[in-house]
Amino acid sequence: MKRLFLYIIACLLLCGAARLSAQSQAAYYCLPCNNACDTIAFDAPGECPHCHMELIRQVVEERKRLQNDRLKIAFYLQDGVEVLDFAGPMEVFDYAGFDIFTVSKTRGPVTSQGVLKIMPDYTLDNAPAADILAFFGGNAGAASNDPAVINWVKRQANIRHYFSVCTGAFILGKAALLDSLTVTTFHKSIASLQEAVPTAKVLSGVRFVDNGKVITTAGISAGIDGALHLVAKIRGKAVAEKVAAYMEYDKWAPDAGLVTVP
Amino acid sequence: MKRLFLYIIACLLLCGAARLSAQSQAAYYCLPCNNACDTIAFDAPGECPHCHMELIRQVVEERKRLQNDRLKIAFYLQDGVEVLDFAGPMEVFDYAGFDIFTVSKTRGPVTSQGVLKIMPDYTLDNAPAADILAFFGGNAGAASNDPAVINWVKRQANIRHYFSVCTGAFILGKAALLDSLTVTTFHKSIASLQEAVPTAKVLSGVRFVDNGKVITTAGISAGIDGALHLVAKIRGKAVAEKVAAYMEYDKWAPDAGLVTVP
Repeated sequence: MKRLFLYIIACLLLCGAARLSAQSQAAYYCLPCNNACDTIAFDAPGECPHCHMELIRQVVEERKRLQNDRLKIAFYLQDGVEVLDFAGPMEVFDYAGFDIFTVSKTRGPVTSQGVLKIMPDYTLDNAPAADILAFFGGNAGAASNDPAVINWVKRQANIRHYFSVCTGAFILGKAALLDSLTVTTFHKSIASLQEAVPTAKVLSGVRFVDNGKVITTAGISAGIDGALHLVAKIRGKAVAEKVAAYMEYDKWAPDAGLVTVP
Repeated sequence: MKRLFLYIIACLLLCGAARLSAQSQAAYYCLPCNNACDTIAFDAPGECPHCHMELIRQVVEERKRLQNDRLKIAFYLQDGVEVLDFAGPMEVFDYAGFDIFTVSKTRGPVTSQGVLKIMPDYTLDNAPAADILAFFGGNAGAASNDPAVINWVKRQANIRHYFSVCTGAFILGKAALLDSLTVTTFHKSIASLQEAVPTAKVLSGVRFVDNGKVITTAGISAGIDGALHLVAKIRGKAVAEKVAAYMEYDKWAPDAGLVTVP
């Protein structure tokens, strides 16, 4: 009887240890890269053979939680959108593990920079909910003066961040999202944004301005810096540094922007 | 009779002066931006109200010659192409006044970065002649191992420059265009490009390498530097500096690459 009792106790202890081990089981995963290899668990550190990102040690459950908790970011692309304005942040947010989708006014192709024909994923009528809304320069006046676009921006609920590059700030301005904030835009449009949003303080000479919920960047290539800043804010500076290194943006200066609200 | 003779002489002199004036007539034009405003002649210096580029004084005939002599650059985009790899150079070459078109293997959409759906302008079968062929990373193996793509590259005649960003160099390598040259590629692919092209010298730690006809760049964001270098080489450093300033790429370091043949 005593032997049976000890046997049961031993079995219970073993089961408990196994469960504890399963709960804290760790493996090596690539830094999130938005490709299928994001879900592959490796046994040892090194480099992902698929995306070449560094493999980092993570508890399996934590990785799964991160995988299911990817932030959704809507890129609004108007006809005439500047190609580097959106492509820089798209590169950054993709490698940082965000889910990106593109939205335009209608289903037809959008031509960027007079060259690149893009088929948007969604229109204003069927775009899914996003955590972050992003706007870009290049014919941004067509979007900021379009009530359909501005009403769509205003309709979106539970937005965690608004992000603009270059003259994409005029769209946020028209949607009354820049009132009384410190912001920035394309270097040739500082005065006209100030005129469009008189209560804002429009700065020149900064790569980005972070107001907590609203991040605006300077022109064209500055979108890369603003996106890396937002990644650092949400996912930690180490992840942003890995992304910058991967894309060989070794000139990244994290402090080249102004943070008014952390 | 004498008066009539003097009158004819005066008329001839006036006609000659008018023709001379037409030949050397100058006006102010924006730096070429690939938009309709490229052809607008302004009376005074300042800023183009359409593209915001600086207005520069040019002889009308010279401007027309430049306008008709725009270099054509083919961007080959394979499915899976990295978005910043091609978008950085597209931004640069567009503002520098090059005619850009996109080519892919088939007519269907190409997905860049797992996100951006692009409709290419041409396929391998109907792409027009280009002065410059450009290749980019992101699933570049699919293109470099595809005989249809490599045969298309080899078929092109009168190419002035071959340009690659990141692992786009593997496509040039497979077309035997890198043999015995000094080249570069994505930082994670230095060893594998060296293995693929044993006669080449594959460098790390440079933003681009210019062999005269062939320009290869390092990874992803380095395409911007390589494109600015090629613009400086063809159109002059002042034009490249204007483009860099316009796109707020103030960190451009023109000497961060290696030039083996000017």
